[in-house]
Amino acid sequence: MSHLKAIQTWLSQNNYDLAYISNFKTVEYLSGFGSDPIERTLALLVFPDHEPFLFAPALEVEAAKASGWPFPVYGYLDHENPYALIKNHILATGITPQKWALEKDNLTLDRFENLRQQFPQASFNGNLTPVIEQERLFKNEDELKLLREAGKWADFAFEVGFKALSTQATEQDVVAEIEYALKKKGILHMSFDTIIQSGANAADPHGAPKADLIRPNELTLFDLGTVYQGYVSDASRTVAFGTIDDKLKEIYQVCLEAQLKAQDAVKPGITAAELDKIARDVIEKAGYGQYFIHRLGHGMGQSDHEFPSIMEGNNMELQPGMCFSIEPGIYIPGYAGVRIEDCVCVTANGSEAFTHSSKELLTLPLK
Amino acid sequence: MSHLKAIQTWLSQNNYDLAYISNFKTVEYLSGFGSDPIERTLALLVFPDHEPFLFAPALEVEAAKASGWPFPVYGYLDHENPYALIKNHILATGITPQKWALEKDNLTLDRFENLRQQFPQASFNGNLTPVIEQERLFKNEDELKLLREAGKWADFAFEVGFKALSTQATEQDVVAEIEYALKKKGILHMSFDTIIQSGANAADPHGAPKADLIRPNELTLFDLGTVYQGYVSDASRTVAFGTIDDKLKEIYQVCLEAQLKAQDAVKPGITAAELDKIARDVIEKAGYGQYFIHRLGHGMGQSDHEFPSIMEGNNMELQPGMCFSIEPGIYIPGYAGVRIEDCVCVTANGSEAFTHSSKELLTLPLK
Repeated sequence: MSHLKAIQTWLSQNNYDLAYISNFKTVEYLSGFGSDPIERTLALLVFPDHEPFLFAPALEVEAAKASGWPFPVYGYLDHENPYALIKNHILATGITPQKWALEKDNLTLDRFENLRQQFPQASFNGNLTPVIEQERLFKNEDELKLLREAGKWADFAFEVGFKALSTQATEQDVVAEIEYALKKKGILHMSFDTIIQSGANAADPHGAPKADLIRPNELTLFDLGTVYQGYVSDASRTVAFGTIDDKLKEIYQVCLEAQLKAQDAVKPGITAAELDKIARDVIEKAGYGQYFIHRLGHGMGQSDHEFPSIMEGNNMELQPGMCFSIEPGIYIPGYAGVRIEDCVCVTANGSEAFTHSSKELLTLPLK
Repeated sequence: MSHLKAIQTWLSQNNYDLAYISNFKTVEYLSGFGSDPIERTLALLVFPDHEPFLFAPALEVEAAKASGWPFPVYGYLDHENPYALIKNHILATGITPQKWALEKDNLTLDRFENLRQQFPQASFNGNLTPVIEQERLFKNEDELKLLREAGKWADFAFEVGFKALSTQATEQDVVAEIEYALKKKGILHMSFDTIIQSGANAADPHGAPKADLIRPNELTLFDLGTVYQGYVSDASRTVAFGTIDDKLKEIYQVCLEAQLKAQDAVKPGITAAELDKIARDVIEKAGYGQYFIHRLGHGMGQSDHEFPSIMEGNNMELQPGMCFSIEPGIYIPGYAGVRIEDCVCVTANGSEAFTHSSKELLTLPLK
């Protein structure tokens, strides 16, 4: 509940009467109750000096109560107006909120208009988005345990995927083998669509796995992640399938040096931009700078799209508890692609990685 | 482009200067270019009497141009302000839009404020959401082809799933087998998380597959769907695994009669509520009304959350081209659950189903 307390403190210090949390991921983050309501309304209402409450579709009320959330849960049926009910529950606290704070990056215009209709005298200028982003920047020990566990399953997935490489298998087949093995272990969700790209296909860092056969004597790129109790992993490895030529070995070693150098440099006080530059300098000095066409990394935790962004221009100083990817890549159109990635957490003196599969060039025998 | 034309006509008739399309699914629906930009900005700008344009992250511009979209595509880099660029591209058409229409169920408050900042004199009162919902209600022949194909893969998935039933397999194992077989055929995405529930687990219509073994001499419920080129399937079958008792047979037959009677009744002019009542009457007369705890069905097409909703209170008359599920269920807590579902399209005289797996009670041998 420390995250919830932080929001209450922010409300107090900034003289807001109410935080209306509409993003189901934030609801889970603050309340412990995780559920995607799709088109229905799920909200967490947080006051500076009164107990918060959850408001959920009737179908979800029992699950919310069973989740360990110690405060009230109110429900609504499909034919009811959720916003009128929310108003009643708010007024029943004895508070008539004038100053609201909203998740402006999540609340849609129609839902905002519904809320405003219930509270026509209120002001809705507070923006919770940067407050929650700031809070989510720092992972606590409970969250780190889940991130480590998600990381273990990514390492497991690499093992399965490496074994599945075959000149008879397509990129999509390798995806199928990896996700099958994970599901058999009870890991039901990937954190994003698994990427398997062989040979020149790997030169497109946004490409999807194809029905193309895995190419012998080329590099194959793996980028994948799992979800474990609401927290994600995200890691990339690139392996040689058969004998690869010297230039492929060279770009692999350049990318690896960039990755290791950046990962070694992580410690409190270094900036995101400095970290990006450490990796980029290695690749540029080797003459491949034009082929490293994306930022070094992105924050991660409940998703792989969080802060901090590890890129040029972001002068945020890294601090303990921040988690992000370090994933330099070299993409040479028509030829090959290499990406090597671990996600790490900044510690007091350095960093801790969530994935541990070897990053030395792995050469798998042709089959 | 007939859907795009319909939006242009609506703009003309309602004196709007511009439609700002922000939902990536709507962008795909109107432009043919499908891409989830996640946190980046993707928009389609449609004018009543000027050619539309796409605005996309720089990374996506080439793919958008290659998609067959015949009008301009403009891009932005991550460090640029997309809304300032959008303003410039709009003004370059020679139009200064005063009256905007927005997708109010999709546009977030922060993005709305960014747009308003660029056009402080404009009004943003138009709501495209109901216009697009109305247009999406009616599927054309190109869309029906994709829905039929998605349906074929759901039928394939049932075959795989039925074969996977075993007293040694968990519900999650059966999910793994189904999705593995689909991925091996190049069907990479399910339209929702596959549901496999055995015995009493099936009494929770919102439950996820568990690590529980498939129970012998019980019913097992399958609810699944695939994505085929942006269109979905969604179907349910419930099968006997081993010998089931007479009460299980009875609830199966009641649910089947309700499903068949409703599906047979589909034709232009009948209302959604009437269809729901036809199925509900069968179940109520048999004494199981209290166990049919959800609406009869939901619209589907690009997703399984579209209009029309087939439920009490929806007096919309069904018309040719509307597509939806017919999925009565009987859920007896602690005992069993049955759901039988096909999705259909209303035709001139009746309906066409997208899935064709037999609905007669299938009894699979124990293994």
